[in-house]
Amino acid sequence: MLYFEEDFNWQVTDEAEKLMQKAFEKLRQEKESKSVGYYTLGKDSLPLVQEVQEYQASSEYLKNIECVVVVGIGGSSLGTKALHSIFKEKCSNCKEMLFLENPDEIDLSKKFARIKKETTVFVIVSKSGNTVETISIFKKIIEVFDLNYEKEDREKIIIVTDYDSNLHKFANYYGIKSYTIPSNVGGRFSVLSAVGVVPLTLAGFEISSVLKGASDMINSFFAGEKENILKKAAFYVSHKKVYPMNVLFSYANCLEDFTKWYVQLWGESLGKIDTKGEHVGLTPIGHIGSVDQHSFLQLIIEGCRDKTVTFIKLENFEKRLKIPNIELKFLEKTDFINGYTFNELIDGECEATKESIIAQNIPVDMITISKIDGENIGKLIAYYELLTSACGNMMDINPYNQPGVELGKKILVKKFSK
Amino acid sequence: MLYFEEDFNWQVTDEAEKLMQKAFEKLRQEKESKSVGYYTLGKDSLPLVQEVQEYQASSEYLKNIECVVVVGIGGSSLGTKALHSIFKEKCSNCKEMLFLENPDEIDLSKKFARIKKETTVFVIVSKSGNTVETISIFKKIIEVFDLNYEKEDREKIIIVTDYDSNLHKFANYYGIKSYTIPSNVGGRFSVLSAVGVVPLTLAGFEISSVLKGASDMINSFFAGEKENILKKAAFYVSHKKVYPMNVLFSYANCLEDFTKWYVQLWGESLGKIDTKGEHVGLTPIGHIGSVDQHSFLQLIIEGCRDKTVTFIKLENFEKRLKIPNIELKFLEKTDFINGYTFNELIDGECEATKESIIAQNIPVDMITISKIDGENIGKLIAYYELLTSACGNMMDINPYNQPGVELGKKILVKKFSK
Repeated sequence: MLYFEEDFNWQVTDEAEKLMQKAFEKLRQEKESKSVGYYTLGKDSLPLVQEVQEYQASSEYLKNIECVVVVGIGGSSLGTKALHSIFKEKCSNCKEMLFLENPDEIDLSKKFARIKKETTVFVIVSKSGNTVETISIFKKIIEVFDLNYEKEDREKIIIVTDYDSNLHKFANYYGIKSYTIPSNVGGRFSVLSAVGVVPLTLAGFEISSVLKGASDMINSFFAGEKENILKKAAFYVSHKKVYPMNVLFSYANCLEDFTKWYVQLWGESLGKIDTKGEHVGLTPIGHIGSVDQHSFLQLIIEGCRDKTVTFIKLENFEKRLKIPNIELKFLEKTDFINGYTFNELIDGECEATKESIIAQNIPVDMITISKIDGENIGKLIAYYELLTSACGNMMDINPYNQPGVELGKKILVKKFSK
Repeated sequence: MLYFEEDFNWQVTDEAEKLMQKAFEKLRQEKESKSVGYYTLGKDSLPLVQEVQEYQASSEYLKNIECVVVVGIGGSSLGTKALHSIFKEKCSNCKEMLFLENPDEIDLSKKFARIKKETTVFVIVSKSGNTVETISIFKKIIEVFDLNYEKEDREKIIIVTDYDSNLHKFANYYGIKSYTIPSNVGGRFSVLSAVGVVPLTLAGFEISSVLKGASDMINSFFAGEKENILKKAAFYVSHKKVYPMNVLFSYANCLEDFTKWYVQLWGESLGKIDTKGEHVGLTPIGHIGSVDQHSFLQLIIEGCRDKTVTFIKLENFEKRLKIPNIELKFLEKTDFINGYTFNELIDGECEATKESIIAQNIPVDMITISKIDGENIGKLIAYYELLTSACGNMMDINPYNQPGVELGKKILVKKFSK
């Protein structure tokens, strides 16, 4: 279960009510008309899980892999990484996963040194099929591991891309196994498509429950049972000039990559020129508690009142590591926490921080995850995707494109082309 | 060398000129009166490097350690981690360093499993000496490693704290080696005090050159040669309502922890109630290129025009890893980069992104680091500290305290005290 609390100190106005109805209707249309595809990924990707499992089971090579290398950047890796970080400690017999994202030489060299060609599958993920970082790293892999993609090493490569992309043509030409991303699913909404499902399933993670959780959240939203999503979106959008930033404070290290996924989803979807030609957006900021209380909390409390704050807390995560009942001379001031677990300390810090922020009349909400499992994390992903779609609709923008990054790409090509 | 370029499209006004003069004078006074201590750490900490080296050389135990564990959070770890991340690849015979910061059970358990008591020194860092996370982790270390801090294991522990703190009293009482932080140096300005110098020197990193670089930057600032710092501060402060956020885009994975250090320095220093009782602040956002171009650039370009952007780029970092001259069928579109190195690609992405942002009239500046070495990184640290002090002064706030976090601490104690 996910529990939602909010302290916005706000009554839904008539205008907000209209925004909410309009957004709900628009999202429903997007789903019905299939113009936006992520709404049904929870169901649509279920057969894919089985397909990948069967493909793997049919291959002597893939059955015995020890490492899944994901080559991708942005929407092609952030969601997969988020799920991997959340579940890796819970799956002792899952394969190792490595992510080759940034074309940073030190990082690439270190990861290359860890890869054993004989027991690795390389999953190349690029929606457009033209991502220069990803294709360049792929070429380097071909060189470093002497990967014969035309013949005997074909099985070591799996491509995930759009149906009509050049990367797909490449895969087909050489008979390399490929999976496609539905054309109505944008990169940053694609974690539950082949983008995440293929590598995570190959590594042995149980993704069906994540898909089920996402389906449940989306179904109950469209059944009108998740008014809190529309209400939160309406609050954010109607206050977007007052609170242009949202800080997501996750209280668990395993959620760090999830906050990065959220930053992309929120930032790239909502930073747009609206139908009136105005620059609009909500800026996402991801932080991890309690560590970042020691770096960012002062700014939230005493700085400009330009932020909403969202807490994510794990409720029943295992509390095993106790703070011992040791009393150190002169350090008795910290003994109040003795005998509690570290997770109880983190939990207490989350609550205390939330209360101290609410005391300042800063809009706060909290998402409590009753337990880290596939269904809950699937729900959390779908919750954020729905919230993003709702905000985008209320802001009169298209949350599903990213026209602003094209100029930089063109300049880059020009710089290197002779 | 560091090179500074800016594209603010702004002329220094008379008012800004006055702000700059006033700030310069105030910072000079802070330095002369020794009310603020970080200005002279570059010189003051030099003897400390030697002291730590001699202490280590005199101890059979410390001479043979293989791992330095830093127990600290916020200002007690971020700067040390930043320097470690930058230099670790350049020092093949330096010891391993582990950072125990967040009281996250999974993270702690994993790191505990990697620690060998017989070859480890634990450096406990807390300025106040009362940090609940740090003291609790210290207690857990005592339990897990059966650390006899009263007798035979004393040498395995080193304390870094304020002179009059309870942690210092604890160290003195049991004869545990300790180093103190000057009382006029705040936590987030303390990386070049014992906080960073002690653990990094124990691990074998050459810190004297970092200190020298910081001294050089600060001396040339007070000699009036770094007008760009005052000018940038004046621009940021006089436009703080227009551009309440600064995005730091560092183009190298090894700078990721540096951006976290910057986020604390900037956020906690500048998020304050000013002398008129107004909430003011500049919100720091750290990103890594090129990977985060794929998550945040769209928001910068098309979203609200509420951000300044700073790029940090490495100029002559080693370019060894070439993108091979492989032409993949159907993927010819990305061949323009063939034969270049990955670092040239990152470099080109940085330039292209900068140009695409400047084309939107968004205020941009760039810091180019000619080469990753101690002096340049020392300069970079001092540059950001000076910039923060200058902004704080111009904003009529005290950049050196953090009163806003006290309420949360009180609530926490109350929650657990019976």
